[in-house]
Amino acid sequence: MKKPKLDAYAILEKVRQERPLVHHITNWVTIYDCANVVKVFGASPVMAHAPEEVAEMTGIASALVLNIGTLTSDVVSAMKIAATAANNKGIPVILDICGAGATAFRDKCCHELIAETRISIVKGNSSEIAKMAGEDVRTKGVDSGETEKDMTRVVRKLAAARKCTVVMTGMEDIVSDGGKTYVVKNGTTMMSHVVGTGCMSTSVVGTFAAVENDLAAAAASGLACFEIAAECAMKTAKAPGMFKEALFDSIFTLDKKTIDRMQKVDE
Amino acid sequence: MKKPKLDAYAILEKVRQERPLVHHITNWVTIYDCANVVKVFGASPVMAHAPEEVAEMTGIASALVLNIGTLTSDVVSAMKIAATAANNKGIPVILDICGAGATAFRDKCCHELIAETRISIVKGNSSEIAKMAGEDVRTKGVDSGETEKDMTRVVRKLAAARKCTVVMTGMEDIVSDGGKTYVVKNGTTMMSHVVGTGCMSTSVVGTFAAVENDLAAAAASGLACFEIAAECAMKTAKAPGMFKEALFDSIFTLDKKTIDRMQKVDE
Amino acid sequence: MKKPKLDAYAILEKVRQERPLVHHITNWVTIYDCANVVKVFGASPVMAHAPEEVAEMTGIASALVLNIGTLTSDVVSAMKIAATAANNKGIPVILDICGAGATAFRDKCCHELIAETRISIVKGNSSEIAKMAGEDVRTKGVDSGETEKDMTRVVRKLAAARKCTVVMTGMEDIVSDGGKTYVVKNGTTMMSHVVGTGCMSTSVVGTFAAVENDLAAAAASGLACFEIAAECAMKTAKAPGMFKEALFDSIFTLDKKTIDRMQKVDE
Repeated sequence: MKKPKLDAYAILEKVRQERPLVHHITNWVTIYDCANVVKVFGASPVMAHAPEEVAEMTGIASALVLNIGTLTSDVVSAMKIAATAANNKGIPVILDICGAGATAFRDKCCHELIAETRISIVKGNSSEIAKMAGEDVRTKGVDSGETEKDMTRVVRKLAAARKCTVVMTGMEDIVSDGGKTYVVKNGTTMMSHVVGTGCMSTSVVGTFAAVENDLAAAAASGLACFEIAAECAMKTAKAPGMFKEALFDSIFTLDKKTIDRMQKVDE
Repeated sequence: MKKPKLDAYAILEKVRQERPLVHHITNWVTIYDCANVVKVFGASPVMAHAPEEVAEMTGIASALVLNIGTLTSDVVSAMKIAATAANNKGIPVILDICGAGATAFRDKCCHELIAETRISIVKGNSSEIAKMAGEDVRTKGVDSGETEKDMTRVVRKLAAARKCTVVMTGMEDIVSDGGKTYVVKNGTTMMSHVVGTGCMSTSVVGTFAAVENDLAAAAASGLACFEIAAECAMKTAKAPGMFKEALFDSIFTLDKKTIDRMQKVDE
Repeated sequence: MKKPKLDAYAILEKVRQERPLVHHITNWVTIYDCANVVKVFGASPVMAHAPEEVAEMTGIASALVLNIGTLTSDVVSAMKIAATAANNKGIPVILDICGAGATAFRDKCCHELIAETRISIVKGNSSEIAKMAGEDVRTKGVDSGETEKDMTRVVRKLAAARKCTVVMTGMEDIVSDGGKTYVVKNGTTMMSHVVGTGCMSTSVVGTFAAVENDLAAAAASGLACFEIAAECAMKTAKAPGMFKEALFDSIFTLDKKTIDRMQKVDE
């Protein structure tokens, strides 16, 4: 029996109708873009990191997005409280392991978050995911090239071992829950020339996961929609400054016809 | 005797001539936009939150803008120090109760700020203001729909009870000092599709309050100018990304003719 | 013997080829713009401020940029750790004394950073640099007009006394290492109407210093390239919102021909 093709638009439509609240504890560099991308997709972002309120805020949200880009021990503590509240409520927790591998402290915090709470979706670039999977790769800051390894195998294996969905972004994004695997082939290299597209894609994954229980399908659909919008943005923008604004505009106006025509996702 | 019509342009002109310094302790999501909106209006923003310096920084400013969007107990402590310094100096303190009603911690901090310092202008959306006025409304994050209540009555009553100016933003903005009440009918729904317009409007109110003692007139004028600029931005922008940049551009070039022609403020 | 003319493009080309990692501990207002300007110049930004990791992060970077715009005592402590690591590794440390003179706390932190670590490049506007040089000037927030003093003399003297490179930005930027002095005459007044251009210029100086040992030449070249891009941006943008995006676009597409034709740097 042939598996049904991923219907990215259907999940986008649910986002726009349900307008889920997506709670973030994220980094200070891209916090605005993370909020705004959720908003232009039609959902509601909220950013809050005080230990006194994160559990309550997560309690009214439909997904929790964590990003360790500018982590401190205080913020990681708040992340643990929020993730525990999300686990208790049964909503998905998405962790962007931004910069993992760059310092021992970052790796320690990642491991603690994964050990002490139930992370639903782990997201990183190839070197970050490889590092978490136990491969010996050195991250050069938050931007790193792809290695020669078979990344699909790494992603699937990590997902199965951790019993979570793993998202590895790059020229092609690999999404796996250990069983199903998607490869999202949309996007443009311009995304790598502007700060924030990586963090935004995590927020998009969180937004789609807020309305769809099949987390691998949610993640792949979110990435496909985000990257189709990026391709559309290249029709009007030729460089990173205008590109980012055009990206927000394209997301806002994204329709079924465009998605169905442009979607390139292998299953 | 007929009251004179609100002259929003006259206050804008004072902002541009006096270039007041507006001290902010605001949230980490929209901090750039808050600073930039003050700048494009022709004034000088400064953002500082270290407890060691906030009193001194407020001491050289003409208004203090507080926003609890991403509050922590440390930042709220700094807000109290700064607000006390502002009270001693006699400059207006504007408080955006961003997300009030979402968590108990947020409400507690709001109430402490209002009880322990003299807030000149309280600003929020309908559910936030309703919550502060003692109405039983549940905030859904920082974005919330209007309730069916008579909002003008709520605003006027709260202003009279608290002896301050209250600003409730929405499709129509209601501004009251307990006596005079303004309803600002400018703006565009596009403002609700981009993160930061709410926080920016608070900074604008602070900027206008920095140069005008009649705080209700200052607030209504600031909102009218900001929202007229937003309407102008819709002439070149059709979606949220370009809209925000066009909004900054429109503010920068806003002139008397445009304001006088477009201003829709009921008194 | 005639000194060779500053070759700003040659250093830009090194940035694009070496793609240095530039570690920032900067302020929360312009942190995105600081990261993005480094990125569009072709280098790699990383922002990290946890005391547990700053030394290790600096250890994989090629330059360290510090900016005290929204300083707290915790962040200043992290700056000292990072600067010490940078000193031990022998990479340049660039300090933006943003807002120096505005409060005693800010001045104290500046002096501590300069006394306890080796700052390679001190950067500020005229009133900030004058303050550090012991002139009695009062900063009005972070925006201040130029005084009547002979600024070139102040810059050269401070550089010689502190044994570092000093960058004073303004209508004309003055760069001196105590010996050589450059005056960069590129730029547009539009830069002063948008928040972030000052902080971005520090990040640009850090990026160029990451690949060039002659720090005065690196600083002058970075400023020239940044400001030539700003002049180019004025061909498509007429107001601050679109200007900033056009600035990023111009930096991304900056070429040798444009730089050589437009560069106005006196030596």
